[in-house]
Amino acid sequence: MKKLIGNAVVGQSGGPTAAINATLAGVIRGVLDENCHGGAIKTLYGMRNGVEGLLEERLVNLTELFADEQKLIDLENTPAAALGSCRKKLPTLSEGKETYEKLLEIFKKYDIRYFFYIGGNDSMDTAAKLSEFSKICGYEMRIIGVPKTIDNDLIVTDHTPGFGSAAKYIGTTVREIIRDCAVYTVKAVTIVEIMGRDAGWLTCASALGRRVDGFEPDLVYLPERDFDADKFLFDVRAALERHPNVVIAVSEGIKSADGKYVCELLGSGSTDVFGHTQLTGCGKALEHLVKREIGCKVRSIELNLPQRCASHLASKTDLDESVLVGRGAVKAASEGVSCHMMTILRKSTNPYEIEISSSDVSLIANQAKSVPNEFINEEGNHVTDECVDYLLPLIAGENTPRFEKGLPVHIVI
Amino acid sequence: MKKLIGNAVVGQSGGPTAAINATLAGVIRGVLDENCHGGAIKTLYGMRNGVEGLLEERLVNLTELFADEQKLIDLENTPAAALGSCRKKLPTLSEGKETYEKLLEIFKKYDIRYFFYIGGNDSMDTAAKLSEFSKICGYEMRIIGVPKTIDNDLIVTDHTPGFGSAAKYIGTTVREIIRDCAVYTVKAVTIVEIMGRDAGWLTCASALGRRVDGFEPDLVYLPERDFDADKFLFDVRAALERHPNVVIAVSEGIKSADGKYVCELLGSGSTDVFGHTQLTGCGKALEHLVKREIGCKVRSIELNLPQRCASHLASKTDLDESVLVGRGAVKAASEGVSCHMMTILRKSTNPYEIEISSSDVSLIANQAKSVPNEFINEEGNHVTDECVDYLLPLIAGENTPRFEKGLPVHIVI
Repeated sequence: MKKLIGNAVVGQSGGPTAAINATLAGVIRGVLDENCHGGAIKTLYGMRNGVEGLLEERLVNLTELFADEQKLIDLENTPAAALGSCRKKLPTLSEGKETYEKLLEIFKKYDIRYFFYIGGNDSMDTAAKLSEFSKICGYEMRIIGVPKTIDNDLIVTDHTPGFGSAAKYIGTTVREIIRDCAVYTVKAVTIVEIMGRDAGWLTCASALGRRVDGFEPDLVYLPERDFDADKFLFDVRAALERHPNVVIAVSEGIKSADGKYVCELLGSGSTDVFGHTQLTGCGKALEHLVKREIGCKVRSIELNLPQRCASHLASKTDLDESVLVGRGAVKAASEGVSCHMMTILRKSTNPYEIEISSSDVSLIANQAKSVPNEFINEEGNHVTDECVDYLLPLIAGENTPRFEKGLPVHIVI
Repeated sequence: MKKLIGNAVVGQSGGPTAAINATLAGVIRGVLDENCHGGAIKTLYGMRNGVEGLLEERLVNLTELFADEQKLIDLENTPAAALGSCRKKLPTLSEGKETYEKLLEIFKKYDIRYFFYIGGNDSMDTAAKLSEFSKICGYEMRIIGVPKTIDNDLIVTDHTPGFGSAAKYIGTTVREIIRDCAVYTVKAVTIVEIMGRDAGWLTCASALGRRVDGFEPDLVYLPERDFDADKFLFDVRAALERHPNVVIAVSEGIKSADGKYVCELLGSGSTDVFGHTQLTGCGKALEHLVKREIGCKVRSIELNLPQRCASHLASKTDLDESVLVGRGAVKAASEGVSCHMMTILRKSTNPYEIEISSSDVSLIANQAKSVPNEFINEEGNHVTDECVDYLLPLIAGENTPRFEKGLPVHIVI
């Protein structure tokens, strides 16, 4: 493969995670490695707010900014996208001629030959479209999508960077909530609402305590199964017979068989710029249902943003892998790979062993991976041991961010 | 002071905290110390679910159960009340003759001469009433209240065990939320609702980042100041002029000048067994207000239970002091002190230095300490530097719980 000499640009897109900056640090480390070895990539630019900022030439010189090792370590421990993010998807090639011409002009101006885009499903769509464009525009470029999403819903890759840290936060927090709820003797139901519009991966993580000491939610409901209010009330009543403090984990996206979100019972749905339904209050809707139909004490807790940005409780495995895929993206690109998304292949679960690889991004974008049948119990109200065993290695290891005056240090670019 | 030989009992009451088990461990350690030194206390019983369980003789032998040092350390790192809690207040002496006779019978049956009660304001009321009873019943006993409450609203003591850990969680989480909210360029308001019915101490902790790197909420509203919706909207509009991502911290208990809780705008208030108004949705009410009046993107986040049970992020200073007051309670009682609540006196802020002391519990119970005027800015929409400097030592130091398979280990009694 011929050496392609030029500069690189990296962007972050989509929702923040606790590990997306670790992947950014990985890309920076990869470029610094390449530089050390007399590589082809000279300067690594960061685009502020993804392609939105790139189109406005809001660029920052990352190779210069992160020459200092401590800054890179702090970046790895900083939650959310340090470069800023966007929700912008590129138009199709036929519809967005002007946009692509503008991009080409900027690539030429800054001699950008490498394009790294860290994000989830919508971001892989951007990487795929740009890959398509790069093939026909006559300007040689290498484009790599680098996955991150707490949702764990990308196909081909065994799991996504960012998911393990969110899973560790959810597993830990739900267990702390279980301890908190166990202190009173009065019958009470606590409903924990967890992120996950179409896939229940994060909600599965609420059951991680099973392999530690058996403490996990009494019931777990995922969007992969139709939600039935009568069956739900039956399950809750049965759980209340077993012990007084019932804790239930639910995905925000659980739906009835006729496709209605549970939260629509409260009329609280709205739509985001991509036409996705914005869900709020599914836990609240179930709280009202239990209150009305069972009449015991009931509360709901929405884990909300902290589940995706709690860097102070990141999984060491997740952060290490996030750096690895970032670094791997640069290595792959410098070796000639393009139009690919980086992937993590699981070679073995026990002992846990992975391999960093990559796969055609156009075959990955705009598809979603659900929790498989064998991870969900027959009754559709909990997860199987197989699911817990799949999840466990992803939350292994604790990360120790640097604290200053009692608070974790964050890097702001 | 004559040596009083007998057994002891300890209970936990009121809402859970991340440090209430550290205080329990402190009491156990104190008794083990006394035992080692040929002290007067033989066996330490734990009452399950506070005085509620004591009246039913649901007792557990703690000196036997916690002979192992590792178990004590794990107990210190376990959130919520390991003995269980209750919301029961003792009746007045004149109204509850039967209850006190039953208690006396149990004290005699188990030769209980020492009574330690770990809790907040309502629990100190129980300790005060029992102290009164012990003075007139002709059965020699020593009764000590040991403070814990995330609310930090007990008088005489500089601060309460449990507060520092909740403050560290809030300070850290609000900063992570600020990072998360900073990634987009579109104008958006994020409202973080923090516990605190009558006192705004916990909400003050959202501003702790000021002394690290300046990142803190744009606006902070406490129940110590009358809430004015017009002034609030004026403040929010001004903040949106300064930068697009506005983060606001509010106490759940903020009230208008005519005494109406903000959440009453949504009609979501209810009443607990003590007649305290149960608040939900103050953040949600403000979210609707901003949506309607300003029209920008807006979300609310209720920190909910995790702010009081996040042992994984406990303040080392708080846990150490929690053990100290528990241990100090046993020492004081063995030296003849009774009818007192343990207190923490601040000798110096920089360097931080405290002294464990005690004070007449009947003068402390049923009173509340608000955030003082000098801790709130003139406009009533933020805290002063003096406030941040008061708080900082309380969140100092990180605690490292033991992790197993990626999750913190909890002790269940």
